[in-house]
Amino acid sequence: MHKKLFIPGPVEVRPDVLEKMATPMIGHRSKDASALQRRISDKLRQLFYTKEEILLSTTSGSGLMEGAVRSCTAKRAAIFSVGAFGNRWYDMAKSNNVPADLFEVEWGKPTTPELVDEVLSTGKYDLITITHNETSTGLMNPVEEIAEVMKKYPEVVYCLDTVSSMGGTKIEVDKLGVDICITSSQKALGLPPGIAACSMSQKAVERAKQVPNRGLYLDLLSLYEYIQKKDYQYPSTPSLSHMYALDYQLDRILEEGIENRFKRHKEMAEVVRAWAREHFEIFPDERYMSNTLTNIKNTRNIDVADLNKKLGERGFQISNGYGKLKDKTFRIAHMADCTMEDIHDVLKNIDEILGF
Amino acid sequence: MHKKLFIPGPVEVRPDVLEKMATPMIGHRSKDASALQRRISDKLRQLFYTKEEILLSTTSGSGLMEGAVRSCTAKRAAIFSVGAFGNRWYDMAKSNNVPADLFEVEWGKPTTPELVDEVLSTGKYDLITITHNETSTGLMNPVEEIAEVMKKYPEVVYCLDTVSSMGGTKIEVDKLGVDICITSSQKALGLPPGIAACSMSQKAVERAKQVPNRGLYLDLLSLYEYIQKKDYQYPSTPSLSHMYALDYQLDRILEEGIENRFKRHKEMAEVVRAWAREHFEIFPDERYMSNTLTNIKNTRNIDVADLNKKLGERGFQISNGYGKLKDKTFRIAHMADCTMEDIHDVLKNIDEILGF
Repeated sequence: MHKKLFIPGPVEVRPDVLEKMATPMIGHRSKDASALQRRISDKLRQLFYTKEEILLSTTSGSGLMEGAVRSCTAKRAAIFSVGAFGNRWYDMAKSNNVPADLFEVEWGKPTTPELVDEVLSTGKYDLITITHNETSTGLMNPVEEIAEVMKKYPEVVYCLDTVSSMGGTKIEVDKLGVDICITSSQKALGLPPGIAACSMSQKAVERAKQVPNRGLYLDLLSLYEYIQKKDYQYPSTPSLSHMYALDYQLDRILEEGIENRFKRHKEMAEVVRAWAREHFEIFPDERYMSNTLTNIKNTRNIDVADLNKKLGERGFQISNGYGKLKDKTFRIAHMADCTMEDIHDVLKNIDEILGF
Repeated sequence: MHKKLFIPGPVEVRPDVLEKMATPMIGHRSKDASALQRRISDKLRQLFYTKEEILLSTTSGSGLMEGAVRSCTAKRAAIFSVGAFGNRWYDMAKSNNVPADLFEVEWGKPTTPELVDEVLSTGKYDLITITHNETSTGLMNPVEEIAEVMKKYPEVVYCLDTVSSMGGTKIEVDKLGVDICITSSQKALGLPPGIAACSMSQKAVERAKQVPNRGLYLDLLSLYEYIQKKDYQYPSTPSLSHMYALDYQLDRILEEGIENRFKRHKEMAEVVRAWAREHFEIFPDERYMSNTLTNIKNTRNIDVADLNKKLGERGFQISNGYGKLKDKTFRIAHMADCTMEDIHDVLKNIDEILGF
C-alpha cells in the first residue's frame, strides 16, 4: 500500500505532476530544451521574487549548497547553523578546503540578526550561509530582520538555504538582499527529488570570478556562463524528466496563486500546531516556527517508530526526530500540495492510534 | 511531433520505462529505499561483470567522472583523451586543482596500450582516466589491450568512462582491472538522463582515504561509506524516479540477455557502418569503431542541419558532428532499445531526403 507522505521531503506528488515525469525525451541541445529551461527560469523568478538569473542543477539541494560556498568564498565563510542542515553546510566548506567558521546556536533557537552583525563586524568574512527553514528543528529563521543587518555589509555574499520552504512561504529574494537562494524539487515545490535550483546575483557572479579552484559540476559560475553562452542550456545532460515536471508544476503553482499557496501552508501549519500544543509541545522557540513542517516535542514519551508503523498500515507516514532528536521529537510536514483535508486525516489517525 | 532520437544521448526511452518515472514517492530513509538501491546495485554488478560496490549518483555521468579524478588522485593523474569527453576529464582535474597531465591523440585515433605504458613507466602517475567510448569521434578504445599493460602498474587507480557504452557492449570490469567504471542512464542503458552509476574497487576506496579535500556531493568515498553505514542509502535525497525506472529497466535488460543485447548493438552498428561506407566514409580508424554510435565523415559536404531539419519533419533526429567536427561529420547512434527496424527506418528516410 502506498503511504501518503507527511515527511519533510520527499513529499507526496500529485498524479498529474508524476505523469509529466514520463514525458518522452528530447535532445538536450535542441531549441526545445532551451525553451523549456527558459520557461522554468521565468516562472521561478516569479516565485523567488527576483530579477536575477536562475540556475538549475541535476543534483539534490546539497549539490547547489556545496557549489555556492565553494564558488563564492574568496576570503572566509561564516556558516550560521540552527541544526543539521546548517552543520552540513559547514562540512561542505571544510571538505572543500574553503576557510569557514561555524556559528551554531542551540537547536530550537534561531540565528539572530544580532549574532550575524556581531560576526560580520569582525570584517573577517566575505560570505555567509543562513538556513531559512531548518527541517531538523522545525524552525524558520527571521530573514527579514537579518536582511536589515546585511545592508551594513554590501561586500558579503549572502547564501540562503530555502530547500524546504521555497514555494511554501514568501521569500522575497531581491528585497532580502539574498545573493544565492537555493531550493530543491522534493519539498514545498511538490516534485520528486532530483533537481535543484538557485538564484544568482551579479554580485555572486563577480565574486565567483575571483575564486580559483571551483570545480566543474557544482560550479555556479560555469552553470551561469553556460546559460548565457548557450541560450539556457545545461553544461552536461540535465534531468529532462524533472524539467518537464517542474515546468508543469510551476504553472499549477502560479495558477493556485503564490499568495494563496503561502496562505494554505500557514493555515495547515496552524492546525498542526494547535494539535501539537493540545497533546504535546512544540520543539522550537514558538516565535520562529516553520510554516512547512512542525517539530513536536515527544513529551508523552510515545514510541515514535511504533506510531509510524501503525500509521503506515493506514497509509500515512510522518517523520521521527532528526539525528540527536530521534525519539525526542517527531515531525509532521505540511507542505507542497498537501491539503487541509490531508492534515485533518493524518491527525485523526494519530489520535485514534494514540487514543486521544 | 515527437522525434525518435538517434543521437548519442539522451536516447529514445521505451514507454513502459518512462511510465516507471511516474511512480509515487517513498521516504528515502525507508527500508523500501534501501531495498530498491540494493536491487539496482546487484543487477548493475551483473552488467558490469564486477563483484565490487556500485555507487549511484544523482548527477549526469560528468558528476561521477569529476568525483573519481578528484577523490582518487593522491599524486598525479594521467588523462588519456581521444576527443571532447577525454578533454572534459582534464578540465575536471584542473578545475579541482588535481595535478594532471593530458595525453590527447589525434581525433579518430585510439589511446594505444603503448602510449599508456610509456606514460606510466615514468612513475609520475597514480591514477589514469580512459574513455571507453568517445561520442565526439565515434571511437571505442582497445580496453582489453590496455588491461594487459595495466597489470604492470598495480598501484595505479584505473578510471574508465563507459558513459556511452555500458549496456551496449561487453565491459568486464573486474577482468579488465578497472577500479572505477562510470556510466550514465541516458545512453545504452535506455533511461532518461539524471542518474549515474559507477563501480568502485577496494583499491580505489583505500586510495580515496589518503586524499584530503575531496568535497562532499561528488566524493566517491562518502557515497561508498554511506552505503556501508546506512544499508544502501544515499547521503542526500536521490532521484527516486530514476531509481524506479533503472530497477525496472535492468530487469528488462537481463531478460533480453546481456549477450543478446550486445549482439543486437553490434548488428545495428554493422548496418549503419555498411550504409556509411556506401555513401560516405567512417570517421574514426576502422579498427576502433564504436558499437553504440557511428560517426560519419561528411565527404559529400551535405548540409547536416538541413538534413536533420527534414528528418525532424519525418519524426527522426540524428546528431551533427561534435565541437570542431560540426558539419565535418554527422553521427547516428544505435544504442539502448533501438531496434534493427528503427535503424532501417532512419536510414531509409535519410536515403529519401538525400536522393540516394
